[in-house]
Amino acid sequence: MPNPSTAGAPTARFLALEGVDGSGKSTQAQLLADWYRAHGMDVMLTREPGGTALGERLRAIVLDPAITCADRAELMLMLAARAQHVAACIRPALAAGQVVITDRFSLSSLAYQGYGRGLPLEEIRAADAVATGGLRPDLTLVIDVPLETALERLGAARDRIEGEGAAFLRRVIAGYHALAHSDATIRLVDGRPAAAAIHRAITAGLSCPAPANPAEGEP
Amino acid sequence: MPNPSTAGAPTARFLALEGVDGSGKSTQAQLLADWYRAHGMDVMLTREPGGTALGERLRAIVLDPAITCADRAELMLMLAARAQHVAACIRPALAAGQVVITDRFSLSSLAYQGYGRGLPLEEIRAADAVATGGLRPDLTLVIDVPLETALERLGAARDRIEGEGAAFLRRVIAGYHALAHSDATIRLVDGRPAAAAIHRAITAGLSCPAPANPAEGEP
Repeated sequence: MPNPSTAGAPTARFLALEGVDGSGKSTQAQLLADWYRAHGMDVMLTREPGGTALGERLRAIVLDPAITCADRAELMLMLAARAQHVAACIRPALAAGQVVITDRFSLSSLAYQGYGRGLPLEEIRAADAVATGGLRPDLTLVIDVPLETALERLGAARDRIEGEGAAFLRRVIAGYHALAHSDATIRLVDGRPAAAAIHRAITAGLSCPAPANPAEGEP
Repeated sequence: MPNPSTAGAPTARFLALEGVDGSGKSTQAQLLADWYRAHGMDVMLTREPGGTALGERLRAIVLDPAITCADRAELMLMLAARAQHVAACIRPALAAGQVVITDRFSLSSLAYQGYGRGLPLEEIRAADAVATGGLRPDLTLVIDVPLETALERLGAARDRIEGEGAAFLRRVIAGYHALAHSDATIRLVDGRPAAAAIHRAITAGLSCPAPANPAEGEP
């Protein structure tokens, strides 16, 4: 059950963290969840494909080198996982009054399958809206780092990516920039400082309810 | 290589056979492929999910009783398989000048996920167009039988379907009727007569090139 003092529409918020692997978005998602909780909010922190049985099976398919996947098929697989994540996890949590913070959402499809693979953005938006049933984050935070910073942080995985993948990731990063400038619900956050400084920059721009009385915060 | 006497746009045709399981559509797809071949055409007879590695993996997921699948996720899985089928099989065959006959295509999504599950038709059409890249059959033949006839033909599988599935299949059949009346490229075919009679009714409405010289038909 949600905390009665924080349940209800005014405190229900849906946020997405975006960026390339190595951007630090997962760290920021965790810090943001902690921050909301410290303010007495009930938070669901989740990530695509969302831990549903379907999502895990689809993730295994996408990562299987034996499976050939056309660009439009790859998009539809991502959308199938997202549709299940929305229906089974995100909508129930929002309905229960929780703040939902997800590591990746619709903007990943636009950045990776759109700017990265070259599928038309309007087609991705149309298909994504069908998958999500029109659910959109109130706020999407893009943690922005140069490709070199992301590769440095990825360490061991760097070699694998630096080949043909580097040009692809440069397009994805440029795509995130373009997308952030086209939509007021998307905020580009400088991901180069230390994690704590990035977190302060993010929360400085967020309105949050006053800290709950600790006694009220207990179940 | 396609037969030079039949290659080229004027003879390239894309046909879809539709209907509920037990309607006889697979038999008609085979008879139609034989008929085109008897007229000297190079034919690819295929069926969703199309025999691609991706399609088979997705089929296994949809049939797995351990996997929960929301309606919109189910739609996206069908579209992922269709996108791969189109990209890897159908488009190359059409580009090579073959006649392509597919057992199920977009109309199945409208009938099953739309009329059957209740997803809005316009949303299915929009997402399907993204999956197929806008490819549509020149002609869709719906083999129409009453539910009772389909169940009778399915024999052993009948019990499994007659429970809650019967109401679902009645909606699907009614959906096929409505869809056929809304689009000039969709033909409703009475599926109750013997297979040979249904085949004659189908081909009576088809224009086909003159029979090829058998010598030309050899590779």
